Amino acid sequence: MSRFTSETQTTLIDVASEMADAARAAILPFFRNPDLMADNKEEDGFDPVTEADRAAEAAMRNVLERRRPQDGIFGEEMGKQEGESGLTWVLDPIDGTRGFLSGTPTWGVLIALSDENGPIMGVVDQPYIQERFFGGFNQAWCDGPHGRRSLRVRGPRPLNESILFTTFPEVGTQDERRAFHYLGDRMQLVRYGMDCYAYALLAAGQIDLVVEAGLNPYDIQGPQAVVQAAGGIVTDWHGGPAHNGGRVIAAASEAHHAEAMRLLEEGLANI
Amino acid sequence: MSRFTSETQTTLIDVASEMADAARAAILPFFRNPDLMADNKEEDGFDPVTEADRAAEAAMRNVLERRRPQDGIFGEEMGKQEGESGLTWVLDPIDGTRGFLSGTPTWGVLIALSDENGPIMGVVDQPYIQERFFGGFNQAWCDGPHGRRSLRVRGPRPLNESILFTTFPEVGTQDERRAFHYLGDRMQLVRYGMDCYAYALLAAGQIDLVVEAGLNPYDIQGPQAVVQAAGGIVTDWHGGPAHNGGRVIAAASEAHHAEAMRLLEEGLANI
Repeated sequence: MSRFTSETQTTLIDVASEMADAARAAILPFFRNPDLMADNKEEDGFDPVTEADRAAEAAMRNVLERRRPQDGIFGEEMGKQEGESGLTWVLDPIDGTRGFLSGTPTWGVLIALSDENGPIMGVVDQPYIQERFFGGFNQAWCDGPHGRRSLRVRGPRPLNESILFTTFPEVGTQDERRAFHYLGDRMQLVRYGMDCYAYALLAAGQIDLVVEAGLNPYDIQGPQAVVQAAGGIVTDWHGGPAHNGGRVIAAASEAHHAEAMRLLEEGLANI
Repeated sequence: MSRFTSETQTTLIDVASEMADAARAAILPFFRNPDLMADNKEEDGFDPVTEADRAAEAAMRNVLERRRPQDGIFGEEMGKQEGESGLTWVLDPIDGTRGFLSGTPTWGVLIALSDENGPIMGVVDQPYIQERFFGGFNQAWCDGPHGRRSLRVRGPRPLNESILFTTFPEVGTQDERRAFHYLGDRMQLVRYGMDCYAYALLAAGQIDLVVEAGLNPYDIQGPQAVVQAAGGIVTDWHGGPAHNGGRVIAAASEAHHAEAMRLLEEGLANI
């Protein structure tokens, strides 16, 4: 990480924090607002999740325009904007819109600072809980109800004592879901529909594996940076780069990573 | 509710709040504590979830011993204690132990004050988010990150625009799961593994139905009181009393309740 001075690192972390704060302020008025949620988007064209999504991305772009105009931006809602620095901010203002819509506090604001090799630092922020997971520049921490705590993945253990989280069955193809279950059947516990919050819990040492498919780059780059900074491994299902999205494994240990790759391959071959 | 004076109602709400505060303080040191969670209960007999469960129930019983010695107690961890008032406090110190173990903030402390006809008032408390859902004595509210808000179920809408939450596939028999999916396939969105938090979101007007099976009385009585106070309907799958546990439907509207009963019956008959 010697390409960034310590001063630049501090600035970049501060910019990411300001962006996450701005996104929180933009989104929270929409979350669990019964008056807004009662509106049906089919009837009058008003979709509170989309409104919140756009408001948060605009708020984050405003911070970047002021503080990092030299960087590119790739956001879920408003697309790509070229930069001059070789760095791009990759943004998903609300990852987990089904959770947001239902009121479950496991959606998140995703921010990554990336180059062509993937994310350099990332944030997973949960505005309602006021919980922020950060990873990058040899730091990995969570600010939240417990104060600031270091993030560190947990050690290896047998698969049948391990916990797997995923957004299946809401992502992926039927073949991918079958391969997922081939792996899942060998775990102690599988939990579904968790979106970005799964990666935060992996970084926090609570769970062992996250397996997904059908991801976009902005779904994975923020979480990937947090997991990697906490000592975890994030690749595609064959061990290649994960930052372009698609099929992703995030693992607490090399043993979990190798087992997940092997069983997903077997699961796909058996179909 | 004329059987309780306004003063007694205030006292009972205050006792429930003190119990929930005591449970929070007892549980939080165990939640997401990587040092504790690293221990494997098979190896040395230490199970952090069970420790937290017992500590919280003991803390709640201490409050009752001091403030309501005349009432009975029925707790998940420490069983039944007879009372003289005809009232029983029904306690589940940690509902959703799989979520607790994984770090997901959707487990809860459940408290109900009940007589032989079911719960009179209830609490669903989420200690990590510092969120408390209360229902009883013609009040229904949530204290949390948004401040205090009234709870009110949302209005009727077609099933294919409705949201169903459940703890399936982690509860119930295979037949019950099949019947559940017969209903679930007709919904806009189904989310799994939510435990008590599902009822809180129903009371908050975020979702439309919760369907479960294999419940214990202490799993349902607290959530039932909150949902009913917010205007919802809670019965077994045939419209009978729910407070003894087993198969439960909680619905935001009469239409949702009737549809769920009909489809679950069809689902069971088709097996």
